Amino acid sequence: MNNKNYYDVTKWPVGNPYKDIGEVINSIVADIKSRQTDTNVNEGGKPGAVIYLPPADYHLTTQVVIDISYLKIVGSGHGFTSSSIRYNVPENEWSKLHELWPGGSRILVDISPTANAAESAGAAFYVERSGDPRISSVEFANFCIDGLHFVDDGSGELNPENTYTNGKTGIYVASAQDSFKITDMGFVYLEHGMTIYHADALTIHNNFIAECGNCIELRGWGQASKVTDNLIGAGFKGYSIFAQNFGQLLITANNIFPRGASSIYCDGVTRSLISNNILHAFYPGMVVFSKGCSENLISSNHFLHDREPWTPMQEHNNGLDDSYGLLWINGNHNSVIGNHFSEIMDKQYLTPAGVTPVIIRVVAGNENYISNNNIVATEIHAEGSDSCFASQVDALLTTEESKPLNVITVLVESQSHRNTILDSGSDAQVVMDKTANAFRATPTLS
Amino acid sequence: MNNKNYYDVTKWPVGNPYKDIGEVINSIVADIKSRQTDTNVNEGGKPGAVIYLPPADYHLTTQVVIDISYLKIVGSGHGFTSSSIRYNVPENEWSKLHELWPGGSRILVDISPTANAAESAGAAFYVERSGDPRISSVEFANFCIDGLHFVDDGSGELNPENTYTNGKTGIYVASAQDSFKITDMGFVYLEHGMTIYHADALTIHNNFIAECGNCIELRGWGQASKVTDNLIGAGFKGYSIFAQNFGQLLITANNIFPRGASSIYCDGVTRSLISNNILHAFYPGMVVFSKGCSENLISSNHFLHDREPWTPMQEHNNGLDDSYGLLWINGNHNSVIGNHFSEIMDKQYLTPAGVTPVIIRVVAGNENYISNNNIVATEIHAEGSDSCFASQVDALLTTEESKPLNVITVLVESQSHRNTILDSGSDAQVVMDKTANAFRATPTLS
Amino acid sequence: MNNKNYYDVTKWPVGNPYKDIGEVINSIVADIKSRQTDTNVNEGGKPGAVIYLPPADYHLTTQVVIDISYLKIVGSGHGFTSSSIRYNVPENEWSKLHELWPGGSRILVDISPTANAAESAGAAFYVERSGDPRISSVEFANFCIDGLHFVDDGSGELNPENTYTNGKTGIYVASAQDSFKITDMGFVYLEHGMTIYHADALTIHNNFIAECGNCIELRGWGQASKVTDNLIGAGFKGYSIFAQNFGQLLITANNIFPRGASSIYCDGVTRSLISNNILHAFYPGMVVFSKGCSENLISSNHFLHDREPWTPMQEHNNGLDDSYGLLWINGNHNSVIGNHFSEIMDKQYLTPAGVTPVIIRVVAGNENYISNNNIVATEIHAEGSDSCFASQVDALLTTEESKPLNVITVLVESQSHRNTILDSGSDAQVVMDKTANAFRATPTLS
Repeated sequence: MNNKNYYDVTKWPVGNPYKDIGEVINSIVADIKSRQTDTNVNEGGKPGAVIYLPPADYHLTTQVVIDISYLKIVGSGHGFTSSSIRYNVPENEWSKLHELWPGGSRILVDISPTANAAESAGAAFYVERSGDPRISSVEFANFCIDGLHFVDDGSGELNPENTYTNGKTGIYVASAQDSFKITDMGFVYLEHGMTIYHADALTIHNNFIAECGNCIELRGWGQASKVTDNLIGAGFKGYSIFAQNFGQLLITANNIFPRGASSIYCDGVTRSLISNNILHAFYPGMVVFSKGCSENLISSNHFLHDREPWTPMQEHNNGLDDSYGLLWINGNHNSVIGNHFSEIMDKQYLTPAGVTPVIIRVVAGNENYISNNNIVATEIHAEGSDSCFASQVDALLTTEESKPLNVITVLVESQSHRNTILDSGSDAQVVMDKTANAFRATPTLS
Repeated sequence: MNNKNYYDVTKWPVGNPYKDIGEVINSIVADIKSRQTDTNVNEGGKPGAVIYLPPADYHLTTQVVIDISYLKIVGSGHGFTSSSIRYNVPENEWSKLHELWPGGSRILVDISPTANAAESAGAAFYVERSGDPRISSVEFANFCIDGLHFVDDGSGELNPENTYTNGKTGIYVASAQDSFKITDMGFVYLEHGMTIYHADALTIHNNFIAECGNCIELRGWGQASKVTDNLIGAGFKGYSIFAQNFGQLLITANNIFPRGASSIYCDGVTRSLISNNILHAFYPGMVVFSKGCSENLISSNHFLHDREPWTPMQEHNNGLDDSYGLLWINGNHNSVIGNHFSEIMDKQYLTPAGVTPVIIRVVAGNENYISNNNIVATEIHAEGSDSCFASQVDALLTTEESKPLNVITVLVESQSHRNTILDSGSDAQVVMDKTANAFRATPTLS
Repeated sequence: MNNKNYYDVTKWPVGNPYKDIGEVINSIVADIKSRQTDTNVNEGGKPGAVIYLPPADYHLTTQVVIDISYLKIVGSGHGFTSSSIRYNVPENEWSKLHELWPGGSRILVDISPTANAAESAGAAFYVERSGDPRISSVEFANFCIDGLHFVDDGSGELNPENTYTNGKTGIYVASAQDSFKITDMGFVYLEHGMTIYHADALTIHNNFIAECGNCIELRGWGQASKVTDNLIGAGFKGYSIFAQNFGQLLITANNIFPRGASSIYCDGVTRSLISNNILHAFYPGMVVFSKGCSENLISSNHFLHDREPWTPMQEHNNGLDDSYGLLWINGNHNSVIGNHFSEIMDKQYLTPAGVTPVIIRVVAGNENYISNNNIVATEIHAEGSDSCFASQVDALLTTEESKPLNVITVLVESQSHRNTILDSGSDAQVVMDKTANAFRATPTLS
């Protein structure tokens, strides 16, 4: 054991970190493994190491492969800037811009996987270890992973930089793992920000993850983890947060902005808590509970659905009708308590024409408890904008000009029984079989 | 591009960081700009830099001016200690004290702006950049900004160190910006902790901001930001948190202690979420929604209003009567759900004498939804104290000795209609036109 | 004043950090004190210092004693791994394991206090300073404190590594203190993770504190602090979070997993907020309000009680019957609003046999407000498991196979009056004197 467990990538003798940070980090990991071979000598042995990336542009052409516990990779700057705005500025105006690219301690992901490659082939950081124990306590902190470009995906999108397709992933964890931390990072222009299989006691905290096809994907199964205090916003095709077969997942204090086909998409998630988030979306299906999500609590969230104001993105949506619901539930025994929903739409853009929008929809499942949610629905006249930053000004204006929009606050489908709907809409606004589900209307003026 | 993007202020050849850290940092910023001139060479160019301040006392006589993205300024210690307590200890006892000043990586703000100077002249850190894109991803982390002294402001305050006036600001961001982070900092004895105009995707997280005239001011307009997990407490004159024309602002998990004319003052804020905070104040007007704040959710907060226990500060208040309301709402379509309010007052100090205190007051606005708030009102006998730390002991004692205090739990003014008040007080405690607003009394004993 | 306030323990000339980090840090603290003697010279004097621990195994045989403000001790890796799982793997399989011990910047606590020693004798870090001002702004960040072993405590536990007894404490703060921060740390295999007396404005944030007898103990009294965004799980004997005589304590956004005799145990806590936590436990008494906890808000939490699935731990419990309540309240004027409770039990394991489990129990106290809590109670058939990770898979299976379990959702004991219970169970499920307490049943099917 020596004291050489601090590595600065700019001082490592193997490789050139500016040309291929992947080669450098892999060489460092090999060095750690060659040095830390003892186990259980005097109750110690493999403490791992920290790898430091000072602010700089680091191209990555070789995938980093991590198979040791206790590795921390840390920079000094999450470095986010909007590439999406820049790519939608005419190129002849770029010379007027102060800077064109994200910054900080920035990884430029130059991997371009072939079309038939495994999804993980496009990952900048790939983590996998078989055997026991599960790989533990790898930490990523305060650097930027930049996918650089999206590409023509044959979808007919005029600007290939708007496709959210490039086959790249920031961090890909393939095997079961314990006590990982991903904090203070920036992720931008990746098809997948992070894809993590089989997480236990994972922390994803205070990151900036935006302009990615999907931002956070928790796949396979997982337990006892938290996604907290992040700024997140996926592209129109993917999910800001996706979770699969997870128990005890805490999603709280996030500010999730558009676009995102869904802000939060849960698939077989149980006994989890989604609370206290700001959720802003341009499409229905903001939060989806698919394939039997049960015994979850959705509480104290602010949902806002309004129309895409930015002209370059107005051609896109997630294909869902306004009858789909902002919150879509397939599952039993969930609690939906004390949320605020704002549905702010121009009638001419409702899909299909003439539809009555649905806010909370129980498509299947029994004994859900939906209580004390306040649904505000307002009709406004919305125009496109050259600025993706116009929504706030619009919001201020339209509050004055608004008039009520007729919505179904809660729709319980006929195959769902014994649900309880309290103080979440009037008798007319809550549509269900009121002999098969319990109901108390929000009091109205007498 | 070289690897020189890490700067230690104690090792920089220009200036003396202990005498004027401002000159040193400005010289470093100039160096960064002179080196990082290339744009778009191999998809890179301007990564920015990190400037490190080891723990030390750094006087600042020259304002730091930041006009580059991706600059991170980081110390190793937020360094807060209470200067207010010390300034109210007799000076002849100071020699017995272990230390007199805050510490850590500490900036001593020696700027003294003239009375007619622009407000920004008193800022230690001044951030502004015109043109496009907006300046992005500047990060301030884990150092202390100490304004040192308050001054006689002609208010008649006997101890000038208790005025909360000195014209100094910690961080002043004048132009629109994106993805800034202010984390793990300490702010003390500044008239304005931070003043930030036109924020987008701002993070203010895990800071200690106390004994400042105002702590956090988000001005102009802004969107999609978060103020989370901070310890905050302004002086009696200003705001712990002030926000203006903001959308999608998340204020959560903060512990906001007295004094503060308001804990949270919102002016034209829409579609935002104030949840899950501890709010403790000595005056009414704890949370104010001014100038048409709409479609916000206030949920799961703990409000405590009791009397100032500390003798040196008992002469101060914010001038509001106890009929003003702890939560004051001017706006439409807000949701106030599931909050706890404790009003703990000695009847002899109620203002004006004999007034019935108001807890939630809708002064103007329609269709607010106020549901399931529990209001506890208790009359106690309160004395002044030599210790600003006595409130907890008092609290424990008074729980035993308390008796109920008569309050109006919800007051809806006559110009406000179609509000819904549920389970937030008895018929007698909720005062409004019950033909113009919907109401359900909290059930009482039959 | 010089610029020598940054210390790397591996470069300090006194002592050997790998053999006794305590000697090294104490020598550094002495150096700081010898150098920082001036007070109030040019408004500065004692900024403190940062002590850096690169990733490595650091044995500690000498207790670290801290009596200066503004000291930051920081590593590069919280280093948690499960020692409990490993100690329950047959020893002849250890050679197949990738690693045996926690890692990162890891303190190995080699102190073994004698049986009659003061509790603080077993602390790795001991903080105490008398006089004024209170010691301020000590920060612990991103290293691991590992107690290494539990020991035979005469309890008859077959495997001494499962006793959660060793007399060791990670951080022990004996005297009143202000503005401390404990962040991004790992604590493992300590009888007490951290014990902190008389806290003011304390931050315990984003730590990993597990497999400790008790995790967080806030003793004596305290105010205006926060325990946020931690992953926590005590052993079967102790508390994940314990708080005593505290006011304005914010416990939010934590994911607290089993075991823990209680997830959160409060003793004389007032005007505090417990919200937004995931609480998972194997025993009743998950949250206890003892000795008159008053005016607190418990909101938006997810409670899950199910049976211990892991065979080596199934012999243990906290000795409480299933009639005890998952939430046990002795106190007045508390608010319990909008929580979800899942009680998932196999009838054969209910204790005593045939008991009807209680979810929320007001054992003593008046004027509590219990509203809009959803209680889900399900009977399943549970088996032991060789894997401590099986609970999630079980959860998924059992949702399908479940049938309702009869429970008392709210029990108010006869000495408790003027409580209000709303929408938290049917008339049959809420057991109390309904002439002495206000009640509205959750609506059921007509």
